[in-house]
Amino acid sequence: MIVPRLIERKRDGDKLTSSEWLELIHGYSAGDVPDYQMSALLMAVFFRGMTRTETDALTDAMLSSGARLDLSDMAIPRLDKHSTGGVGDKVSLVLAPLIAELGVAVPMMSGRGLGHTGGTLDKLESIPGFRTDLSLAAARAQLDRIGCALIGQTAEIAPADRKLYALRDATGTVEAIPLISASIMSKKLAEGLTGLVLDIKSGSGAFLPELDREIELAKTMIELGADRGCPVVALVTAMDRPLGDACGNAMEVREAIEFLRGHSPEDLAAVTYALGAEMLQLAGVATTHQDAQLQMREAISSGRAAERFRAIVAAQGGDPRVVDDLSLLPSSPLRAEFRASRDGIVQRVEPRAIGHGVVALGGGRRTMHDVVDPAVGFDIMVKPNATVTEGDVIAIIHAADDAGVAIGHSVLDAAISIGDAPVDVLPLVSHRITSDAVEQLQ
Amino acid sequence: MIVPRLIERKRDGDKLTSSEWLELIHGYSAGDVPDYQMSALLMAVFFRGMTRTETDALTDAMLSSGARLDLSDMAIPRLDKHSTGGVGDKVSLVLAPLIAELGVAVPMMSGRGLGHTGGTLDKLESIPGFRTDLSLAAARAQLDRIGCALIGQTAEIAPADRKLYALRDATGTVEAIPLISASIMSKKLAEGLTGLVLDIKSGSGAFLPELDREIELAKTMIELGADRGCPVVALVTAMDRPLGDACGNAMEVREAIEFLRGHSPEDLAAVTYALGAEMLQLAGVATTHQDAQLQMREAISSGRAAERFRAIVAAQGGDPRVVDDLSLLPSSPLRAEFRASRDGIVQRVEPRAIGHGVVALGGGRRTMHDVVDPAVGFDIMVKPNATVTEGDVIAIIHAADDAGVAIGHSVLDAAISIGDAPVDVLPLVSHRITSDAVEQLQ
Repeated sequence: MIVPRLIERKRDGDKLTSSEWLELIHGYSAGDVPDYQMSALLMAVFFRGMTRTETDALTDAMLSSGARLDLSDMAIPRLDKHSTGGVGDKVSLVLAPLIAELGVAVPMMSGRGLGHTGGTLDKLESIPGFRTDLSLAAARAQLDRIGCALIGQTAEIAPADRKLYALRDATGTVEAIPLISASIMSKKLAEGLTGLVLDIKSGSGAFLPELDREIELAKTMIELGADRGCPVVALVTAMDRPLGDACGNAMEVREAIEFLRGHSPEDLAAVTYALGAEMLQLAGVATTHQDAQLQMREAISSGRAAERFRAIVAAQGGDPRVVDDLSLLPSSPLRAEFRASRDGIVQRVEPRAIGHGVVALGGGRRTMHDVVDPAVGFDIMVKPNATVTEGDVIAIIHAADDAGVAIGHSVLDAAISIGDAPVDVLPLVSHRITSDAVEQLQ
Repeated sequence: MIVPRLIERKRDGDKLTSSEWLELIHGYSAGDVPDYQMSALLMAVFFRGMTRTETDALTDAMLSSGARLDLSDMAIPRLDKHSTGGVGDKVSLVLAPLIAELGVAVPMMSGRGLGHTGGTLDKLESIPGFRTDLSLAAARAQLDRIGCALIGQTAEIAPADRKLYALRDATGTVEAIPLISASIMSKKLAEGLTGLVLDIKSGSGAFLPELDREIELAKTMIELGADRGCPVVALVTAMDRPLGDACGNAMEVREAIEFLRGHSPEDLAAVTYALGAEMLQLAGVATTHQDAQLQMREAISSGRAAERFRAIVAAQGGDPRVVDDLSLLPSSPLRAEFRASRDGIVQRVEPRAIGHGVVALGGGRRTMHDVVDPAVGFDIMVKPNATVTEGDVIAIIHAADDAGVAIGHSVLDAAISIGDAPVDVLPLVSHRITSDAVEQLQ
């Protein structure tokens, strides 16, 4: 295998064979293929795409680069939810304890910040002491005990994907359907699931702002799952504005805990319950969507879901008192108000600009080895179509220093626009996609 | 500067500003921008191209990343020749001593193997003891003393280009006009030249097999030179078959020394003298093409050019006895004959396949850090339109081991084809390009 020749072939529109993909990915995983060759290949894939056979080969190569969770002897269903990545998306932090509380094992494996979107691992690690680097054996023991483990990809699981994920983030090669599909499914297939729900983000803040490409992405993952014994259902949800109010690692944990204690922004609740209902039905725990909704709301209002989260935090080395005392989460030294510049109606809260803004504040990665500041971010108190008056505080900037505050202001100036007329926004949940059909919901 | 954002912008068809290119290139040179980001950016450039303003900025950024040779106080003209890279191209090894012997200073800065083509530095370093890592001060002193220095890019000269050159080689991002132009011109402009002759290879073995792209490349470099006070003339020469017989580092040095001693394959002599004549006329040393040819042939036949090469080898730490005793050059442990498989007329000797074959034998680089075996390669004794009889020895494989011999056979099987009818080949020198015109010669 002469890697520059393979890169040239892909670059020039040729397809690589399954054994070439296997050799490339295992070689990359072993360190024999360097980052700089892989990133050039990924950029060529961005421009040239991959055939279904190539995507299959890439998925299997990444899956076989590591170990799997064997949960086949567990008596209860095993479900996970995966999002294609959004801004302000703290749904996983709520759903994991909530669904586990309702009798479904949730072996949730998450990633780190990628592109302009946040990562669940980075968010969890803002809880003092919280460890996501559990071994598979430890995760299995925790699943048996409390029905949920929130883990990262350790060296054991799809190590090739883990390396690629970080590399793509740093090299502008995130937004390619075959790479996204293979990355997600190689991890999910290693979790020993009996079912998977996908949250496919749509709109300007999604990886793939065009809806038809989003649906292509969902179908690719549904097929990859179906061929490998894991039924998958996907919902398309809105990412033309941030989800919920908080954007930034610790701030999003705070909002998730408030949700588990019974207080959530409407949009976050709607998306979370819709995805949770699909999980509970796929698991056979709920018979209808309404049944699922009632079970979830009861688990929240009774405090049981928050208790489950406390157990998970404690099991993974975190300080369980954060569930009751949010001041134990990291907070930024500086907070600055951002005010409406005029009377009017909010037109846009541009999630991509907000996401890049969190990175600019230090809350995300520019290169693979950057350290994330958990405390920084934005609290945005308005949504598109909100009526505002000049001088209203519409957002709070959480920054590490004065330079961060200045960056935050310029980010929000660009991201939030105010006009005179109401605007169209995407429905919170627009489509439901299964292996049989694409159903429009709203 | 958030590098992944710059990569994404270039990827999506936007152009980067001059200051962004400057910051990227100086950052890459300083190690702040890692290889894996630069290779992804280069692949995006491959697909998207660069504007003339971007190419100017890239050239100036690479030039300003290091020092320059200041030769402005030298009384004699300073000329260099640069080839876009071919297979079997040992013209520089002959021209440097030959032109220096005729009263022109030749501060020749060369590169290493890139893609399927060899590099003059790798060839020179096959001479026992020969050092190409002269400081600029040492090169200047040697130019004053013997009129020629054959140097590599040390850390002093265009260090950003040096790093990029090696990276492109390993990442399938060689064949892009703005990258080739800026790479060549940033080095040449650092040499303090009063003129430059370009050897633009055309045909299947050239970086850019399409002639119109070759001419675009030449024009880009001519403009870059003209804007910066260095007149440039380009010849388009044939690279639809290897130049001369030898392909491989030490083997090519051997053929160059034989040329300096008065014996050369016809094709190699024709191309070398054509390029040399342009140098001598640009320097004002010869008044006409015929005058230049006579001066060069006299310098060869008198032995003066070979003597000048001996002086250069000695000055740069090499064993000057190689000029008289070719057995002092590295030679491979195994040599195997390759025979014609049938009677007929040679149709193709495919240079790209031969060049990749030399790499496969160990004589070139697959990644930036590979060590080159100087001894391996091919001696190919036939050209297209040669008449051969089944069983004729038409090539010799020089290999390190039996595996290399087997590789060599399969390379030559694929690279050399024999048929029944004569074939068209490219003229050895087809076009002459100046800032005014593109003139067809044959």
